[in-house]
Amino acid sequence: MLTLAHCQPFSHLHPPLSVKRTRTRTRASMDPTVSKPAVTGFPYLPPSHRDLMVDLLSSIEARLGPTLLPSRVPPDVLYFENQQGTSQGALDIRSGAQDSSVDFILQSWLHCKVPTGDLNITTVFAFLNASTDAPHLLMEFIQGSPTSLILFMDLLPRKDLVLHPEYLDEFYNTTNLDKSRQDLNQLPQVSPYLSSSLYIRSVLSPTATAVNVNCGEGGESCFEELIRVHVSQAAKDIVGVWTNKCVNKMKALEESERVGLLKRDELIKNKTVEIDLAANLPRLFGSEVASRVVAEIQKAFRIR
Amino acid sequence: MLTLAHCQPFSHLHPPLSVKRTRTRTRASMDPTVSKPAVTGFPYLPPSHRDLMVDLLSSIEARLGPTLLPSRVPPDVLYFENQQGTSQGALDIRSGAQDSSVDFILQSWLHCKVPTGDLNITTVFAFLNASTDAPHLLMEFIQGSPTSLILFMDLLPRKDLVLHPEYLDEFYNTTNLDKSRQDLNQLPQVSPYLSSSLYIRSVLSPTATAVNVNCGEGGESCFEELIRVHVSQAAKDIVGVWTNKCVNKMKALEESERVGLLKRDELIKNKTVEIDLAANLPRLFGSEVASRVVAEIQKAFRIR
Repeated sequence: MLTLAHCQPFSHLHPPLSVKRTRTRTRASMDPTVSKPAVTGFPYLPPSHRDLMVDLLSSIEARLGPTLLPSRVPPDVLYFENQQGTSQGALDIRSGAQDSSVDFILQSWLHCKVPTGDLNITTVFAFLNASTDAPHLLMEFIQGSPTSLILFMDLLPRKDLVLHPEYLDEFYNTTNLDKSRQDLNQLPQVSPYLSSSLYIRSVLSPTATAVNVNCGEGGESCFEELIRVHVSQAAKDIVGVWTNKCVNKMKALEESERVGLLKRDELIKNKTVEIDLAANLPRLFGSEVASRVVAEIQKAFRIR
Repeated sequence: MLTLAHCQPFSHLHPPLSVKRTRTRTRASMDPTVSKPAVTGFPYLPPSHRDLMVDLLSSIEARLGPTLLPSRVPPDVLYFENQQGTSQGALDIRSGAQDSSVDFILQSWLHCKVPTGDLNITTVFAFLNASTDAPHLLMEFIQGSPTSLILFMDLLPRKDLVLHPEYLDEFYNTTNLDKSRQDLNQLPQVSPYLSSSLYIRSVLSPTATAVNVNCGEGGESCFEELIRVHVSQAAKDIVGVWTNKCVNKMKALEESERVGLLKRDELIKNKTVEIDLAANLPRLFGSEVASRVVAEIQKAFRIR
């Protein structure tokens, strides 16, 4: 959710007050006796985007599942929508168990009708706790048309890399993380993408894959292939480095180091909510729904 | 000199052992009785690149000149070349006076014959001392052909921007520094450029203008205009922010803050020399000349 405020599609997003609901699922979800789409269901996603997310979550689940506690997110945050039925969203958060290095894993999807079509944003945000200084995982995909996708895939550093070149070596140079970024950027349909928030740019690592994939009008099959082959491979590589090199790699930190790390983590969490969610969710979902969702996220973001 | 190792032109740079000297100046410079080209002379630079540097140095000189001490760089570093006469360079460093916030200003040019033509690198690197936490200035232009130029223009942060969002606001958000980067990147001949060194990427700010200007074969007039109008304006804007907002803006720092700042500055200096100069100057100028030049830079880089 690092990019909600800053992705191009939102700059022209003014949901009309009355938009025809074309999906019975949306109406059904207003009825508490009817089952609501789970956060892993992705009912509105185009197939290649959905498959990408399903694969991603499966590989994270396979590695982390046993170390995660059951979700405690209430049903009205697990699934939510605005009054007009033009925006739907789902959010789940699972905390790590006592002896896990995982603080929490947040996964979400947002679906909004915009004048130009559908906007779909999917996010996986996995935060580690202070039993390690290893990077957090951020994966976010923002699809504003059937043939374009903005994507952010990164391991977020937890230390100032200028002051800690050994950290840069350990998690970024020796893992060859930059190759995924380079491979994608070599494709003619892919161009670098910068968040308009300087803070969010600062949070990302120097190997962050932050790109715009655009196959243009009529480029559906090119787009499908690009997501299924290239983006999928890059995503697998990045998640692979994170699950193998970062998760449950405990490290005894000195007290001052631990305090600095927690302060930095807290700032990343607070600024993310401030820049992104608190500023934009009310516009998309109304203040009541937005407050509920933000409060749940803030609960998970509490430093433990 | 942050980019010496990482610019594309160097990756295929293997100076032939005997290259015809086409400039009498090169031969003359071997004779100690003949005057050598000053660092501000830029004898080998194409006109638009030279004018850019001359303008840049004039505006820095106008603001800082009175607060700088005379140069103490020896003649054999003020100008140097390799044995074969295929690479020439000039370097000057001036320290700030006692009550100045300037630590030192380094300016240099390098000129090398490469199989594809001439390679010219010009650099201005202005470091502030611990009387302020304001950013350093880096301007570097790497010209590998008559119609292309890689450029790095930035105010280098002296704090971890993730931990210090107020610093990001003070020097980067409120100064609108990102506009220069945006304006240049909108031109079709301009594309983002990333250093291959992850450390150097980490040192740069989120508003760094790091781009490749390429007007292609036969694009001489397009290139001239682009440098004279657009690059020149961006360079002026960035130097303007630095001279007005950063130079001689003393700030009382707490001791722990000061220690952290100096440690960070020292790392930037040491890593720059290690990654860039110490690794590459010997190849271009031979070990004796390279050692002399690197030693002079290290002297200036000593934390004061």
